[in-house]
Amino acid sequence: MDAKEMAKKQAGEASFRFIENGMTIGLGSGSTVYWMIRKLGEHVCDGLNVAGIPSSRQTEAWAKEFGVPLTDFSQTQTLDLAIDGADEADQSWNLTKGGGGALVREKIIAAAAEQFVVIVDESKLVDQLGAFPLPVEVLPFGWEVTAERIANLGAKPVVRQNNGSLFTSDNGNYILDCDFGTIHEPAALHQQLKQLVGVVETGIFAGMADKLLVGHPDGVDIRDS
Amino acid sequence: MDAKEMAKKQAGEASFRFIENGMTIGLGSGSTVYWMIRKLGEHVCDGLNVAGIPSSRQTEAWAKEFGVPLTDFSQTQTLDLAIDGADEADQSWNLTKGGGGALVREKIIAAAAEQFVVIVDESKLVDQLGAFPLPVEVLPFGWEVTAERIANLGAKPVVRQNNGSLFTSDNGNYILDCDFGTIHEPAALHQQLKQLVGVVETGIFAGMADKLLVGHPDGVDIRDS
Repeated sequence: MDAKEMAKKQAGEASFRFIENGMTIGLGSGSTVYWMIRKLGEHVCDGLNVAGIPSSRQTEAWAKEFGVPLTDFSQTQTLDLAIDGADEADQSWNLTKGGGGALVREKIIAAAAEQFVVIVDESKLVDQLGAFPLPVEVLPFGWEVTAERIANLGAKPVVRQNNGSLFTSDNGNYILDCDFGTIHEPAALHQQLKQLVGVVETGIFAGMADKLLVGHPDGVDIRDS
Repeated sequence: MDAKEMAKKQAGEASFRFIENGMTIGLGSGSTVYWMIRKLGEHVCDGLNVAGIPSSRQTEAWAKEFGVPLTDFSQTQTLDLAIDGADEADQSWNLTKGGGGALVREKIIAAAAEQFVVIVDESKLVDQLGAFPLPVEVLPFGWEVTAERIANLGAKPVVRQNNGSLFTSDNGNYILDCDFGTIHEPAALHQQLKQLVGVVETGIFAGMADKLLVGHPDGVDIRDS
């Protein structure tokens, strides 16, 4: 395991300390979340009673693999906790997410949770967001017009492809990867984008994180808001 | 034909005067739009050269039935004109739409058009919007949580059903019919709702109409902004 993977493992496993018996937990997506689910599965084997709501098909598959019981929003509308990774986290804990394409379900889950715990390896910390193009989920119908409207806000949108055809999210929508350069006001940019007709959700998670766990190869730094 | 249907026919057919040769036209949805498409088809038979982008499967079927050539947003990102009906229109020409479930595509089309012509029969005119529950299109994932969040804004959301199962829009989403009572500030309410995670679009079309054509059984009243 390389140093970055070890850092992810540290952050993912450390999030377990926020989990209590009886909790309903939103399960994020991505390679850091993998370590959290694996750890969670071990404790479920030892008798821990929890239920998870997965934010992606990949997460659902991992939860099944490691024996984590699942539920859904028809059973419960409040989550005690959500745990998820991020592509970038700035010094005010604003996040960008969506590199993996699950940003909408991740955000629905994070917003429904009483506490949102973010787990990242140290390479994800940035002074300001925007090193990667911002993922924006849009409706397939008229996406070309929506892309133009986003371009008018100062971005270069590129529709995400997957093996030569357009990438489709778990919600059946497209993702536009939008290069805005450095994002100086994440909350304001999110609001502007979300307001556009055709935009379903953006990858900016502004002011949502309650804890930030930053993994290093040999430990984890736990930050409280 | 009853008086209301005659009024719809008057409004629908009168919209033809805004159509010019060579135009690309957004085709709305609903029973008033039916008359517009039928009329348009007659003129296409007589040599008129136009292309339409339909906002629903029903509209697409009518266009094909009446011989109106169709295009889509991969071919053109600007529409010369969009023509659509409404469920309600207030005195500032704010509209509610979505009774038929096609509100998102209708709004994408209206927003992409240089001119938006609204056709209604006189029964649709109201002092203030809100006699019908407001349709809000939401993602299926976590719709129960989204409904709760909308309820917190003061509505009673009811998920739309169709023959005993949940109604699905052309975009694969659900519709919540949200009774807010009288809507005093349509633009503000739309913004609040659209900002919510899980909300795709609302049925409030605020400040979008350029012309309002109000049909009566024996004529039409054409209002210009």
